Amino acid sequence: MSKLIQVTELILRDAHQSLMATRMAMEDMVPACEDIDKAGFWSVECWGGATYDACIRFLNEDPWERLRTFRKLMPNSRLQMLLRAQNLLGYRHYEDGVVDRFVDKSAENGMDVFRVFDALNDIRNLERAVAAVRKSGKHAQGTVCYTVSPLHTTAKFVEMAKRLMDIGCDSICIKDMAALLKPQPAYDIVKGIKEACGDKTFVHVHVHSTTGVTMVSLMKAIEAGADCVDTAISSMSLGPGHNPTESLVEMLEGTGFETRLDKDRLENIRAHFEKIRPRYKEFLSNIIGVDTAIFDSQIPGGMISNMESQLKQQGAADRMHEVLAEVPNVRKDAGYPPLVTPSSQIVGTQAVFNVMMGRYKVLTGEFADLMLGYYGETIGPRDPKIVEMAKAQAKKPSITQRPADLLKPEWEELRSAAIALKGCNGSDEDVLTYAMFPQVAAKFFGTRDQGPKNVGKDPAKAAPPASAPGQPAAASAALSGPVTYKVELNGKAHKVVVSPA
Amino acid sequence: MSKLIQVTELILRDAHQSLMATRMAMEDMVPACEDIDKAGFWSVECWGGATYDACIRFLNEDPWERLRTFRKLMPNSRLQMLLRAQNLLGYRHYEDGVVDRFVDKSAENGMDVFRVFDALNDIRNLERAVAAVRKSGKHAQGTVCYTVSPLHTTAKFVEMAKRLMDIGCDSICIKDMAALLKPQPAYDIVKGIKEACGDKTFVHVHVHSTTGVTMVSLMKAIEAGADCVDTAISSMSLGPGHNPTESLVEMLEGTGFETRLDKDRLENIRAHFEKIRPRYKEFLSNIIGVDTAIFDSQIPGGMISNMESQLKQQGAADRMHEVLAEVPNVRKDAGYPPLVTPSSQIVGTQAVFNVMMGRYKVLTGEFADLMLGYYGETIGPRDPKIVEMAKAQAKKPSITQRPADLLKPEWEELRSAAIALKGCNGSDEDVLTYAMFPQVAAKFFGTRDQGPKNVGKDPAKAAPPASAPGQPAAASAALSGPVTYKVELNGKAHKVVVSPA
Repeated sequence: MSKLIQVTELILRDAHQSLMATRMAMEDMVPACEDIDKAGFWSVECWGGATYDACIRFLNEDPWERLRTFRKLMPNSRLQMLLRAQNLLGYRHYEDGVVDRFVDKSAENGMDVFRVFDALNDIRNLERAVAAVRKSGKHAQGTVCYTVSPLHTTAKFVEMAKRLMDIGCDSICIKDMAALLKPQPAYDIVKGIKEACGDKTFVHVHVHSTTGVTMVSLMKAIEAGADCVDTAISSMSLGPGHNPTESLVEMLEGTGFETRLDKDRLENIRAHFEKIRPRYKEFLSNIIGVDTAIFDSQIPGGMISNMESQLKQQGAADRMHEVLAEVPNVRKDAGYPPLVTPSSQIVGTQAVFNVMMGRYKVLTGEFADLMLGYYGETIGPRDPKIVEMAKAQAKKPSITQRPADLLKPEWEELRSAAIALKGCNGSDEDVLTYAMFPQVAAKFFGTRDQGPKNVGKDPAKAAPPASAPGQPAAASAALSGPVTYKVELNGKAHKVVVSPA
Repeated sequence: MSKLIQVTELILRDAHQSLMATRMAMEDMVPACEDIDKAGFWSVECWGGATYDACIRFLNEDPWERLRTFRKLMPNSRLQMLLRAQNLLGYRHYEDGVVDRFVDKSAENGMDVFRVFDALNDIRNLERAVAAVRKSGKHAQGTVCYTVSPLHTTAKFVEMAKRLMDIGCDSICIKDMAALLKPQPAYDIVKGIKEACGDKTFVHVHVHSTTGVTMVSLMKAIEAGADCVDTAISSMSLGPGHNPTESLVEMLEGTGFETRLDKDRLENIRAHFEKIRPRYKEFLSNIIGVDTAIFDSQIPGGMISNMESQLKQQGAADRMHEVLAEVPNVRKDAGYPPLVTPSSQIVGTQAVFNVMMGRYKVLTGEFADLMLGYYGETIGPRDPKIVEMAKAQAKKPSITQRPADLLKPEWEELRSAAIALKGCNGSDEDVLTYAMFPQVAAKFFGTRDQGPKNVGKDPAKAAPPASAPGQPAAASAALSGPVTYKVELNGKAHKVVVSPA
């Protein structure tokens, strides 16, 4: 009897986030839900990441209503979300009480599996969210963000997994957001985790397909003992997205592993999204095929398009080469953070500033915060000279405690502000929407009763692809004005305005 | 020290054959030749397959001149070609003397490695070509066409490889033209060949990427001892083409295997073809992403588009489903031939006839020939009732000898006919061009002095993709009129005209 390899289907979250800027409307997903529900997946990722933001910013759709609809349409499935730990689904640290509320409400509305990650792999940033998930009786998946640096060894990743299990995680996810995870490290890390944490530890592997090697990495991870892998239905796979679900099923034939997924259901899902995909042509990533330059630059594709647009706006598109060379320096100076939202944007923008104005002549507010410990601990030491510059510029000390420990209870204040908004229904869910995205929420509450808006178009009428479509919606939006840089920390806004010399 | 994994780069032949209907002009390849020559490939596939046909049919380019140019531009490289054994580069069996001449002239003009295959895996069809290559002092690579059927076992493939080594092949290629080779059989077959033929046997693996699993198959083949694998530079990879060269290089890091290719050269090659590719938009395959339905239907993508266009021309596009279900039946009745040019077209067209007119109410001339042994032996028995029908319709007996044994020396006749043509330069090369494609050659000789024609276009001006662009040029052309079916065997033309009832 072959070993069962479980599968998480990504079509309803990361697949359309990666391939079409998170723009897919709920009505384009609904017809596939019955087949998804009955295909035999271990879980269905369908919420979190940029979906919440995209719902209220672009689709006039209540993200909580989306969650409840998924719950109703997929009664047999574990629903899964991606949670940025203490950042929840926003871009700042939240106070613990807000974290608890968010997790409670998500569980209550139907979420089953919470994949919790922190951009710096700082365990302290995950602890509260993991505890909240455990308290709600749901599945807490602790995440190891995979990256490459002289300090990121197999032993370090295994050690982090061990610590995640120690704080009470139900399973471990190895998250490779930039398709950097090659077959051998995939094997070694999974093997290492199974040895360190015990054979029964449920190990889940998430990879993107951008570099063309990660289907092999999934195979090696499975050989090393991985229990579950993430894929996306083929008609919404590859490029900056994920490996195709059907290919995974076929790949395992005769290997002693099998998915036991229902192939007829998979074909129905495939056919549905093949019809839907062209409606979002305007938002489709223009990365087709593979990009292996990432291995040398360690810069994810979406980050490159961001930096390109920043340089273009300053009339310096020809300096991209210098910026690409500068990114690894900035990353080293910052103690080798993984490059994932928000650290990828922070490091990338600082590299642009360094090239345009001289190295560290100006620090962005976020980069200063990163250097001072306000995002948490990095794996490596941060350059002491630049830490001093950050102190001087930001006029605040460096910290070593958990960043959220500096925050005061904020629920009541958030609640008062939210219910004062026109169209707010007074529910905790609405307060949480306001807490995540105050400005966008205000606008959304006012227009919500007009109902969801489908931004997909008849393919014949669609415009050519946007310039940086691989990016999560919110990230692109936040960086649309690179010269004016806004930093929001603990509810206080800082602004850095920089003009080319 | 890691084991060296050799690589054959496919960009100059199979990559553009699979992705852009073999239309790439020589002038678009020339600027990349120095980098290709110096990147460290074991060989550079650059001739054969449909390139010869496309040169004279579409590009007004002398294929022999193309070969000589490659020879001059890549002095350090083994040049490699794909040869359809006794069919050479045409679509009929040639008499042995013509086979000898073709191989001699190819060697003389600069070819180093001859990959010889037969669509039915009938060793007798390969023997003469392999002997001719050996006599010329060049590298004879014997090919096992991979396919899936109840009779195609690992043991059978290994046995065929053993027989190929016994007739004097210098190496073995496992050729997976439809991306059906999954990781486990890839491992088992390579392992089996190494055990049966000795560890020193040079095993080369060729796969397409259509189904999304074959990068993993390359990994498993390498683990089993494969010495050399085929890939295409990333900017001309994936879809119905091949796995990306750069991804292969990266994939092997830390595994105990390495390619030692020059990554800077690879980047130059990639960047060159990234610029060239959009010029051929009009011919680009519309298969993007993967197609795993092939595993169940065992019907390669290009064959499906062909059958679709045949059905459409008869106003029966809605019967595709029945045709897809009929193909495996026809294949079984014919003794399970691999589906590759020309057997894929023969089986596919008969399936269309069966659905449109009733099972075997009319046999195509080619299908009758296949049933009577005129293409060679198949692995399984052919249905005796249909063999009798074929005898009655074709008015000839079934045969068991090597088909080419029925042919009389034909060189002098070909020579006389060729040199009588306007523009023929009297060389053996021109006679061979005439022998391969008599009608097209006649036209080509007349226009040759106008020089090569580049059918690539400024992308802004290019038309939308053609309907069946994954197909080799010649195959599409040969099947453009499915209702009128022409059979040419031993120089004699048969015509079957069929109208829907």
